[in-house]
Amino acid sequence: MYSASRNGEAPSKTFVRRHMLHAVREDEETGRVTLAQVAEQAGVSISTVSKVLNGRQDVSRPTRLKVERLLEAHAYRRTPRSAWEAPLIEIVFHELDSIWGMELIRGVENVAKANHASVVLTESGTRHLPGPDWVGGVVQRRPVGVVLVFSTLPPAVKKQLKSRSIPFVIIDPAGDPEPDVPSVGSANWSGGLAATRHLIECGHQRIGIITGPQDMLCSMARLDGYRSALSMAGLEADPSLVAFGDFHVQGGYARAVEMLDRPDRPTAIFAGSDLQALGVFEAARVAGLRVPHDLSVVGFDDVPLAQWSSPALTTIHQPLRKMAEEAANMLLRLRAGDAATTRLELNTRLVIRQSTAPPSPV
Amino acid sequence: MYSASRNGEAPSKTFVRRHMLHAVREDEETGRVTLAQVAEQAGVSISTVSKVLNGRQDVSRPTRLKVERLLEAHAYRRTPRSAWEAPLIEIVFHELDSIWGMELIRGVENVAKANHASVVLTESGTRHLPGPDWVGGVVQRRPVGVVLVFSTLPPAVKKQLKSRSIPFVIIDPAGDPEPDVPSVGSANWSGGLAATRHLIECGHQRIGIITGPQDMLCSMARLDGYRSALSMAGLEADPSLVAFGDFHVQGGYARAVEMLDRPDRPTAIFAGSDLQALGVFEAARVAGLRVPHDLSVVGFDDVPLAQWSSPALTTIHQPLRKMAEEAANMLLRLRAGDAATTRLELNTRLVIRQSTAPPSPV
Repeated sequence: MYSASRNGEAPSKTFVRRHMLHAVREDEETGRVTLAQVAEQAGVSISTVSKVLNGRQDVSRPTRLKVERLLEAHAYRRTPRSAWEAPLIEIVFHELDSIWGMELIRGVENVAKANHASVVLTESGTRHLPGPDWVGGVVQRRPVGVVLVFSTLPPAVKKQLKSRSIPFVIIDPAGDPEPDVPSVGSANWSGGLAATRHLIECGHQRIGIITGPQDMLCSMARLDGYRSALSMAGLEADPSLVAFGDFHVQGGYARAVEMLDRPDRPTAIFAGSDLQALGVFEAARVAGLRVPHDLSVVGFDDVPLAQWSSPALTTIHQPLRKMAEEAANMLLRLRAGDAATTRLELNTRLVIRQSTAPPSPV
Repeated sequence: MYSASRNGEAPSKTFVRRHMLHAVREDEETGRVTLAQVAEQAGVSISTVSKVLNGRQDVSRPTRLKVERLLEAHAYRRTPRSAWEAPLIEIVFHELDSIWGMELIRGVENVAKANHASVVLTESGTRHLPGPDWVGGVVQRRPVGVVLVFSTLPPAVKKQLKSRSIPFVIIDPAGDPEPDVPSVGSANWSGGLAATRHLIECGHQRIGIITGPQDMLCSMARLDGYRSALSMAGLEADPSLVAFGDFHVQGGYARAVEMLDRPDRPTAIFAGSDLQALGVFEAARVAGLRVPHDLSVVGFDDVPLAQWSSPALTTIHQPLRKMAEEAANMLLRLRAGDAATTRLELNTRLVIRQSTAPPSPV
């Protein structure tokens, strides 16, 4: 029946839907639920089921929802792209100018390369949610899976991905994962504790903190780590030395200017992020204070620029690349049907460089 | 003949080659050379031609080369992915930890988003050349086109992409494009001139330069710009104030330590790149010199960290995001058959921040 094509004759206008063909083949080989069965139960044609699987737009919404429900109920497993097709791993950011971006991309790329896959990159462009266009594209591209950075998924999108057996994992440096979504995070509380302990061990007693925005869990975890370190050392926490920044340079600068302007200024600041630490550096420079002689500063993240700042920044290493690698590997395991690990928290650790020292005698 | 599939019956084992079907359809519609004609001239089956187009491995090398030659000779135009498939734009780096990476990715992503396309990212992992696996993957993914960062393409790869009508553009901040490859660069010589003129206008006369590696054209262009600025201002260029770095922090630091250790040290340094400028900052700090009071510093690139350094860095803005946007747009034009623009050089411009000032009186 396919000789016509091989001989170069024209196929009909309703040309063959390749994915449908793949899927039907697979079902015959594996004995799992077939598209024909789904179509029968839904009371639609196989072609319609195939359209839903492939994310085509020419299916009514009620039909699409009905078919998706059935696919999900039967735990329909989509064929992986055939062996001679290049597999894809997707990574989605809500905005690409994140200082973390490159490290995360590298982590996913490392795993992709080891598995002869390529990385598809999307910027959702909204605060947290990838748009509807995006889901359609993912469904059509049939990736191994999707790594989401900072994104929470609306239930409808989760359903769409699940019904097509496309696994997804959230990388969540902010530490605020949805409970039912596989995720990789890092130890924010321990990081806050380690940063503050280091300053205490240097001899500081008046230690300020500029943590992140008040509505992010990771900000609160770092702040709690700071408070616990002070408390364990028998030091009183001064509420007026606690400030909330924006995780950017400007927020660190503005809050540090306020703290350093006080007569009882802190001798050390835990800056909550590397970018905020750079803002603290600039506030110190403007105030005529030398780092670390007059002011010690600790960051958080250990992005590449932490080692390039002058002086090089003592900071808490958040293993961003490793987190992305773990997320991509989790996708591969989910794809293979192993759903055991769904929440992973990697260790943070203190990296001592040039920006911390004992307080100078007053 | 396709009713069997629509009704859910099993397709034969030699399942339909979708790309072949697309291609045949297209050729009938456009009247261009058909796969059948190529197959006839090559003395092979259409199926074999289709395999070559799709990058499959089960074709002998001599056959592949013969078919590729014919496809190229006939200027065979591949069908774009069909309307309901998500189009792809590829970007290839030789290493992802480039400080330029994120800006370039953002530029390509901007154009992709505007065209409802997604970005596929590859790290070639070698000094300049994407591996053979990569070409196969690209051919299978049928992207709109490929943006290469810093890569020169071996002639065989060029042939493979050309014979499949996959356009490619090189983004080349190093300024060393192959003459027959479409590319986007920026004005390195003008940038070196502007940086040095700014220091001269501040009143500096002993101006050092730490340019990039000696084997990169952009290093030489920036150095020549520096020399011309001195010469036009009637200043003698002191060869002992010319050094070659590595475009990284460490190279800037090492060369600056040497320059600042001299009794007749320069009062200003044009650092050749932003990372080298950070190395100069650190060398100045270690030597007890304040920037800009004791030493003025100008960078090159204007990557995001230039505005976050302390003090904020005066630098030459290289429009990386814009360069990537232009490269992606060039792909779209090449794809549409417009091959007019094949070499684009975007303007650099001076951005004055806090790291330059008049020399302090000795």
